[in-house]
Amino acid sequence: MDPLLALQAGHLAPGTVPFAAGDANTTGIFLALFVLLAAAKVGEEIFRRLRQPGIVGELIGGFIVGPYALGLVSAASLEPGGAVAVFAELGAVILLFYVGLEVRTDDLLSVGKPALATALIGMLLPVLAGVGVGLVLDVGVATSAFFGLALAATSIGITSRALAEMGVLDRRFARIVLGAAIVDDILALILIGVVTGVVEGDLSASTLLVALSGVGLVVLGFVVARRVRGLPKTAFTWPLFADTPLVVAFLLMLALAIVSSVAGLAAIIGAFVAGLIIAETEAQHDVEHETRTLVTIFVPFFFAYTGARVDIAAFLEPEVVVISLALGVLGVLTKAIGGIVGAWSAGRWTSVAVGFGMVPRGEVGIVVAGLGVSLGILSTEGFNEVLAAVVITTIAAPFLLRFAVPRALREPGNEPQGEPGTAAA
Amino acid sequence: MDPLLALQAGHLAPGTVPFAAGDANTTGIFLALFVLLAAAKVGEEIFRRLRQPGIVGELIGGFIVGPYALGLVSAASLEPGGAVAVFAELGAVILLFYVGLEVRTDDLLSVGKPALATALIGMLLPVLAGVGVGLVLDVGVATSAFFGLALAATSIGITSRALAEMGVLDRRFARIVLGAAIVDDILALILIGVVTGVVEGDLSASTLLVALSGVGLVVLGFVVARRVRGLPKTAFTWPLFADTPLVVAFLLMLALAIVSSVAGLAAIIGAFVAGLIIAETEAQHDVEHETRTLVTIFVPFFFAYTGARVDIAAFLEPEVVVISLALGVLGVLTKAIGGIVGAWSAGRWTSVAVGFGMVPRGEVGIVVAGLGVSLGILSTEGFNEVLAAVVITTIAAPFLLRFAVPRALREPGNEPQGEPGTAAA
Repeated sequence: MDPLLALQAGHLAPGTVPFAAGDANTTGIFLALFVLLAAAKVGEEIFRRLRQPGIVGELIGGFIVGPYALGLVSAASLEPGGAVAVFAELGAVILLFYVGLEVRTDDLLSVGKPALATALIGMLLPVLAGVGVGLVLDVGVATSAFFGLALAATSIGITSRALAEMGVLDRRFARIVLGAAIVDDILALILIGVVTGVVEGDLSASTLLVALSGVGLVVLGFVVARRVRGLPKTAFTWPLFADTPLVVAFLLMLALAIVSSVAGLAAIIGAFVAGLIIAETEAQHDVEHETRTLVTIFVPFFFAYTGARVDIAAFLEPEVVVISLALGVLGVLTKAIGGIVGAWSAGRWTSVAVGFGMVPRGEVGIVVAGLGVSLGILSTEGFNEVLAAVVITTIAAPFLLRFAVPRALREPGNEPQGEPGTAAA
Repeated sequence: MDPLLALQAGHLAPGTVPFAAGDANTTGIFLALFVLLAAAKVGEEIFRRLRQPGIVGELIGGFIVGPYALGLVSAASLEPGGAVAVFAELGAVILLFYVGLEVRTDDLLSVGKPALATALIGMLLPVLAGVGVGLVLDVGVATSAFFGLALAATSIGITSRALAEMGVLDRRFARIVLGAAIVDDILALILIGVVTGVVEGDLSASTLLVALSGVGLVVLGFVVARRVRGLPKTAFTWPLFADTPLVVAFLLMLALAIVSSVAGLAAIIGAFVAGLIIAETEAQHDVEHETRTLVTIFVPFFFAYTGARVDIAAFLEPEVVVISLALGVLGVLTKAIGGIVGAWSAGRWTSVAVGFGMVPRGEVGIVVAGLGVSLGILSTEGFNEVLAAVVITTIAAPFLLRFAVPRALREPGNEPQGEPGTAAA
């Protein structure tokens, strides 16, 4: 039925139409968006004043205004598929696009043995630890896989922000951390695709297909990225509508997010690949600059939305506390060991600083937790356990770095070297 | 019910949850957003290459992919209250916020008699013409009021873009146009509030209240804007979360949009007032710069969404064609007369150029049309008639300007004067 006719005929209540003054529905959605954004920012402010990671504050801010605490945002307005959920999802997509924009294929190829070793060992150990915890607790293979998956990837955003705040982004150990974080991010994204495929498909031919399409999309993205290296900005700005390259870049981001979604992968993988491709072109600087504006507005919705979905009651059950602590502590230890073993040749305290720099899991872990819930693999308890473990790693990292970095700086090879290839988030 | 538990228990289909790989619902929304944005941009591109106004192309692009043409975007995905509609609404809010950011209270106070006279006459005549057409056709008082309302305000965005493209933004007649356009925008916004109140409330005390709150909000915004003049940027950036002033500005925009909506006014009025206030502070430049990024991404959704809702069948009815033409031609003539009479003292061709510069109605007229539908006042036919009339004015303006401007430039007083206070959109 023609929606305009429906309106005329009174089939739709006046409160459900757009642009209406005092329109209850629109106003309600705008109010939910305002409350979530404000809560995220107040939470971030408090945590940063306390010298804690801002995203933890955003999560807690979202929780406080959410349906399980103050209830300023109703459970109904957070319903999957609704406008607020779409804002949150777009936040995750834009965040991973932005991370992709900061990754150069050269950075990946030029990181030496220590970065690669750190990435591989620092990914294998946490995954094994997570899966091990799951199997010991007998929560099932799929849930165990998500425990491991959530602990797999270091957050490039958080670790680079932490290193930038200490003013050491240009030191050797920081470069190793960034290189390793990039590698394990890509491996984790592929793993997410594979596990998602295994869980969603029947465990046979389609599984292999999804795994292949996951690897294929990233590899193809990598190849395309190398091919478009140095592509002039005019490739993005030749249309008259494109005063800046952002519109074309945003369309590419949405398109690859959709392609990756249709192929059975998470939308964020496509978004990351889109960022990876644009990072090699001469439009990278402009697109990154403008995307930062979108990150500022959209990403907080993702964290606040995630926080608002946390049921504190389930959080406080003794079993959940024990599992969260087990996952969190193992998450810290395994990444630290990965760095110490992987980067040992770079110096004792340097390797410790690398290991500690790899500890924060941040957004990738949270995205994995959300994915696990949406696939019906993680229960409310499992979601909370993973979330708490991720929060533990993210809170622990700045303290650990404050301990190890001054000692690493006294070792040879960590003198200032000029700007690193990867900028601070 | 706990949504996570609901998921677990299988109460929600897997396709309705966020972050899922291959999630049909999320993918569908992303696809609708992609198609609308791409269609808007292709439409804009074609129209700009043909030296026509880009927003007409965005409207037509949206129409072409919409449910009444190709059907790439379904009527269901455009439903009011859904995610796509919220994106469109936020587009309108951001657009009016951006227009507010370009308005200085000084510009309003320093425009001389010609601008004020042009604004008042150029607003009164089209409103009378629109209402007259409605009354002659006997469509009812409320619909007639919306015919008039939609023809009231010149589009600052379109006229300043047209003048900028001709390289004459710094000439005297252009300053008069911009000053007059600002004044009639504010008058129109107040009128929108008043008419909305009259239509929504019972026609008694609450009507007066809404009218007063409309005027009150704009006057209060004006007073606050004068008070915060020169407020240092640090007022927006003192929070640690605010690397740029945008977050605080965006929160203010959302807050005033909500306040204005709760007060019974259109959300866009609050957004405009928020822009007006920030325009006086030292954060104006930064906020405008970053808001332009949001405008680039969000505003096309508004135009494409509007176009997608146009039912071409209703458009082609002879009666609709006749009324559209009548409204469109009268819309052009009345604004032109307003300029010629109002700015006559500035020179003959200068006054003609001013009048022609005031012709494009653009987004404000379209917002009014959408508002009329949502209030149940404009029928599908009425919506199409208003939309067509707005499109006629917007297409006619650049041609008329190309005729009058060279002649106006030969008159004294129109020499280059340096940058005007209002930047090109």
